[in-house]
Amino acid sequence: MKNSKLVQYYMLGKGCFARLPELLEQREKATSLSGSVLVIDHFFQGKNILDLSFLSSADLVIWADTTHEPTTDYVDELADKVKASLPRPSAIVGIGGGSALDIAKAISVLLTNPGKSAEYQGWDLVKNPPVYKIGIPTIAGTGAEFTRTAVLTGPVKKLGINSDYSVYEQVILDADLLKTVPHEQFVYTAMDCFVHNCESLLGMQNDAMTIAMAQKSSDMIKEVFLGEMDHEKLLIASSMGGLAIANSNVGICHPFSYGLGYVLGLHHAFAICVAFNQLGEYYPEVETFKKILHKNNIVLPKIITDGITSEQLDHMAELTLMNEKPLSNAFGPDWRNVFGKDRVIELLKRM
Amino acid sequence: MKNSKLVQYYMLGKGCFARLPELLEQREKATSLSGSVLVIDHFFQGKNILDLSFLSSADLVIWADTTHEPTTDYVDELADKVKASLPRPSAIVGIGGGSALDIAKAISVLLTNPGKSAEYQGWDLVKNPPVYKIGIPTIAGTGAEFTRTAVLTGPVKKLGINSDYSVYEQVILDADLLKTVPHEQFVYTAMDCFVHNCESLLGMQNDAMTIAMAQKSSDMIKEVFLGEMDHEKLLIASSMGGLAIANSNVGICHPFSYGLGYVLGLHHAFAICVAFNQLGEYYPEVETFKKILHKNNIVLPKIITDGITSEQLDHMAELTLMNEKPLSNAFGPDWRNVFGKDRVIELLKRM
Repeated sequence: MKNSKLVQYYMLGKGCFARLPELLEQREKATSLSGSVLVIDHFFQGKNILDLSFLSSADLVIWADTTHEPTTDYVDELADKVKASLPRPSAIVGIGGGSALDIAKAISVLLTNPGKSAEYQGWDLVKNPPVYKIGIPTIAGTGAEFTRTAVLTGPVKKLGINSDYSVYEQVILDADLLKTVPHEQFVYTAMDCFVHNCESLLGMQNDAMTIAMAQKSSDMIKEVFLGEMDHEKLLIASSMGGLAIANSNVGICHPFSYGLGYVLGLHHAFAICVAFNQLGEYYPEVETFKKILHKNNIVLPKIITDGITSEQLDHMAELTLMNEKPLSNAFGPDWRNVFGKDRVIELLKRM
Repeated sequence: MKNSKLVQYYMLGKGCFARLPELLEQREKATSLSGSVLVIDHFFQGKNILDLSFLSSADLVIWADTTHEPTTDYVDELADKVKASLPRPSAIVGIGGGSALDIAKAISVLLTNPGKSAEYQGWDLVKNPPVYKIGIPTIAGTGAEFTRTAVLTGPVKKLGINSDYSVYEQVILDADLLKTVPHEQFVYTAMDCFVHNCESLLGMQNDAMTIAMAQKSSDMIKEVFLGEMDHEKLLIASSMGGLAIANSNVGICHPFSYGLGYVLGLHHAFAICVAFNQLGEYYPEVETFKKILHKNNIVLPKIITDGITSEQLDHMAELTLMNEKPLSNAFGPDWRNVFGKDRVIELLKRM
């Protein structure tokens, strides 16, 4: 029985991003340290969306390049940059989607723990308490603001830093920040949440809390996308999805998305949508997913075309099948007997 | 916009009460302090239900008398007892229903803050960090395990200590502990949760998180009491109800229950049921509530009988109307115009 860590404080409300300076000031007083590190999705660079006028020369802004998903090398490079100019910040703030939030988590760990990020990919490998961190999602659905995982792509595989030390101490949920997200990305990311809820609910590894959170999260996503849009409701659905997945595991869809993402460089949420769309045999909710895409005018392209080599296909299948924990969550410990490479390639070809 | 504090860790699973010694040991190591205070509902005294064999002479057990709801005097008396024999415990553990959980919260505050408990009744009056505390509910529905309130009856009125410092650091949710609860009390307490969910949802003071949590909590309570009983699910419904009420407020029913409870000495959850049963004009869910009672073979007695004096009735009405915050949550700031004393007495007479 796991002892589950929760985010310590959350603030909710349109415009509450404006409370960030006050929180940082409190933190400086409490720690007697000066200066914060802000890890901000590069999407916001040069745009006049976030009011950062409160920053001083003591603070350090890192514009996180989220074109590709964060790699261990990239996170190490950013952590070195922080160590060189502000090694003991009073706080680290992650602002953005799952990538920016995860990069901030990883940097907070690396500032107080020796070595490279790859050494902490796995479960409970972080030894020293990290720098205090604030997570501010600017898109709904990743759930990263409420999980203990910082997903990183290493030289060999994609694997999270999973630690109680990578849970945010403070989360700010400001629905106003969601206004700028491009429509397709907005839908794909919410669908990522919908998918990991389905995977949680139909997996073997969940509990009463996970089930309650995943069910309610999915109910709210359906209400929002098939009924009336409500950004705040969607942020809560994302938080609840994060709370659900934190104590369960993904299933069949995420392994496919890892293979697709790694070989073809697809964005995570988009890869999830491409994969889930073809997994109706395993997840009845694929029907609802299709309705949501249709209602929101999104037509998924076919990704696996004739241009793909059999080596690439084989590599994707191998990468998919490397995800032992999710696949055994979906099919049980004997998953290899029912879910072999031929089957994976057959499904990949439809995607 | 409030910054909402959450319980830091929760453990969930049948039998996880057995992990308590391990958590206390970790705590002793981390603090270099020796001995814990266990505040346990007197219901468990002399019974062989809880395995307390791990306790040593360094620990202190307080059997909390929960015959009546905790008063400020009683809590002060218990806190003095703890100060006299174990003033610096490594942890305080509350085990029981809402009363025992609230008493433990209040003692943890009084050990590190000067003066009497009545000085902290109100909002954010606690100055010093309290002793680390673990909450273990043995009944589902109070939500006390997830709120920042310790409800205390003072010489003049019933008012909680409301502070971030009265949020449990650790909660243990063990459905096995619910087995011993007498049937009627079991139902009444779950209905208390159902009622504060209704009050949250129909009040003016709530937010997207509160609404999501209260809705899901009520859905689960209905599933459990009108469908298949599931103690673990009910514990989660209670936790979610706690999370909901923490950021909203009660409405019309709780003020009545305070009046009834104060004058007639009724147990909180029972008083809630007596009051809610007559509030169908305000809460459509009273119909569901009646179905649940019927299905669970509970017939509520009539409490306000001919034996009640008009002075008592008047006193109950006054006490009900003292609850300005809940009543303005229910009716808006001009609540006095629509909810006067005559109306309160008229409703009380039906209870």
